[in-house]
Amino acid sequence: MTGASFGQVTIVGLGLLGGSIGHAVQAYLPGTTVVGYDADPDVREAARGLGLAHRIADEAGEAAIGSDLVIFCVPVGAMGAAAAAIAPGLSVEALVSDVGSSKATVAAALAQALPGHHVIPAHPVAGTERSGPEAGFAALFRNRWCIITPPADADPVLLARLVAFWEALGARVETMDADHHDKVLAVTSHLPHLIAYTIVGTASDLEQVTQSEVIKYSAGGFRDFTRIAASDPTMWRDVFLTNREAVLEMLQRFTEDLTELQKAIRKGDGAFLFDHFTRTRAIRRGIIEMGQDDARPDFGRSDHNGDGQGSGGGEPA
Amino acid sequence: MTGASFGQVTIVGLGLLGGSIGHAVQAYLPGTTVVGYDADPDVREAARGLGLAHRIADEAGEAAIGSDLVIFCVPVGAMGAAAAAIAPGLSVEALVSDVGSSKATVAAALAQALPGHHVIPAHPVAGTERSGPEAGFAALFRNRWCIITPPADADPVLLARLVAFWEALGARVETMDADHHDKVLAVTSHLPHLIAYTIVGTASDLEQVTQSEVIKYSAGGFRDFTRIAASDPTMWRDVFLTNREAVLEMLQRFTEDLTELQKAIRKGDGAFLFDHFTRTRAIRRGIIEMGQDDARPDFGRSDHNGDGQGSGGGEPA
Repeated sequence: MTGASFGQVTIVGLGLLGGSIGHAVQAYLPGTTVVGYDADPDVREAARGLGLAHRIADEAGEAAIGSDLVIFCVPVGAMGAAAAAIAPGLSVEALVSDVGSSKATVAAALAQALPGHHVIPAHPVAGTERSGPEAGFAALFRNRWCIITPPADADPVLLARLVAFWEALGARVETMDADHHDKVLAVTSHLPHLIAYTIVGTASDLEQVTQSEVIKYSAGGFRDFTRIAASDPTMWRDVFLTNREAVLEMLQRFTEDLTELQKAIRKGDGAFLFDHFTRTRAIRRGIIEMGQDDARPDFGRSDHNGDGQGSGGGEPA
Repeated sequence: MTGASFGQVTIVGLGLLGGSIGHAVQAYLPGTTVVGYDADPDVREAARGLGLAHRIADEAGEAAIGSDLVIFCVPVGAMGAAAAAIAPGLSVEALVSDVGSSKATVAAALAQALPGHHVIPAHPVAGTERSGPEAGFAALFRNRWCIITPPADADPVLLARLVAFWEALGARVETMDADHHDKVLAVTSHLPHLIAYTIVGTASDLEQVTQSEVIKYSAGGFRDFTRIAASDPTMWRDVFLTNREAVLEMLQRFTEDLTELQKAIRKGDGAFLFDHFTRTRAIRRGIIEMGQDDARPDFGRSDHNGDGQGSGGGEPA
């Protein structure tokens, strides 16, 4: 579990995830040099100001030179193109990885763009609704899971080094195959995002209830969905396009269950509703016990700290 | 806006809401005496220990004696029975109110149980996923909206005193008619809860993904839904049964929108997805600007405070 396994790491894509890795490597792996690259010159400029890396490369072709680990942190639909652009400077000994939220498609795209290279995809299950280089912070991965999806022929030494790398950043590491990952994440992440994006859209399109009313009375539950639905649109478009089958399958299950609850409401079947609503409490307890969420009521939101002001501090319109 | 408008307040039902009112009146209206009552003797005992009221009545029939405001804080399906039990001790001059999440049905139930009495229903849009007397705290209503739904013939003096009461507890007050309230809350609160209960149920019933995987990787979005789906089952059963029409109407809209997004995923229509996901960001900004949510990423959850531990502090299984 030595943190110094990689002498130089290149991060391609300097948004929330890439920026956080940049901060985290500098904080927790002081022996490792970080090189950053982003296709957007404004992001490169911002990344320099934020100190996300020891050096920010201006050309894709030279970003990977001298690195023994290259991590792609771009939307999953852009992985192949980003890999092809990096290829000229990439050593055949280097390990190529990523942080994408869907894994089977990304594994194929990276392997196709970088034939003959070592590719071991990974997915740190961590993030916030923020995006862009300013959103990154070193502690993002601490106490979160990182799922590594090694191909069958993955080099065991490189795999062990990648595990150690993520552990050094504070993550707990699990390995599974890419297809299983895509099913698990379809339910724990992709479907929740789709549902949240849907309901926020529905609420903003109503005629009988104004958008300002929706905003005003959002503390009744709706506001939680808006946080998720504020996530990066490009990233999420790509997730749904690259994990289509698993998402559609989970969505089908969800729709069946929703129809059943709808029918219970229509029929006035209180016993069915009560049983269903009781059952779902156990999962929350499991999440709290496993340290995967804040145990305080309402996630410990600041408006319950008794200061009488939500942190937004706004006044009624 | 004098806080001393009511000399004695009776709170019927000492769960999260009733308990919070008990704490809040003692904290912010020191001139007011608080009497509490709950049909459950264990809750009465707990309420005494927690100091939720100056006095806890043991009999429903004497709980309202001497009070000029009685607030029912029981599940909306139990309002009528609770009001009938209280009636013997209730003065005809006293104001009767409640905190229920649906208003048209509750207004009818209270009016029927207490003919000749002053009834002005109210709904503080505040809460957490916790329930029971231990869950209450004085600051629950601060900076949150309280919607009052006065009947057409409401006494304007009593209405003004009820407004002043909620403002003294820190709430912002809005009035509207009960039917409109029920439509607004169907979208900002009831539908989000129904969706959250559904998806948490769906996730726990899958064969290909285990419940322990769902819990483990919940930080990808799912965990937010589990918080909402941990809310009190009795309360929510009653909400869906008493606000049926509005909930079913909003659910219909939601289902149409979800079907449209499903189709876009199936067809691979990235432009449609991107446009939809971009549009939903604006609502989040409105909520933050109006001080209705915590502006910090991830609601300011403690696992981003950089201490490396979610507050649950659990270890991987």
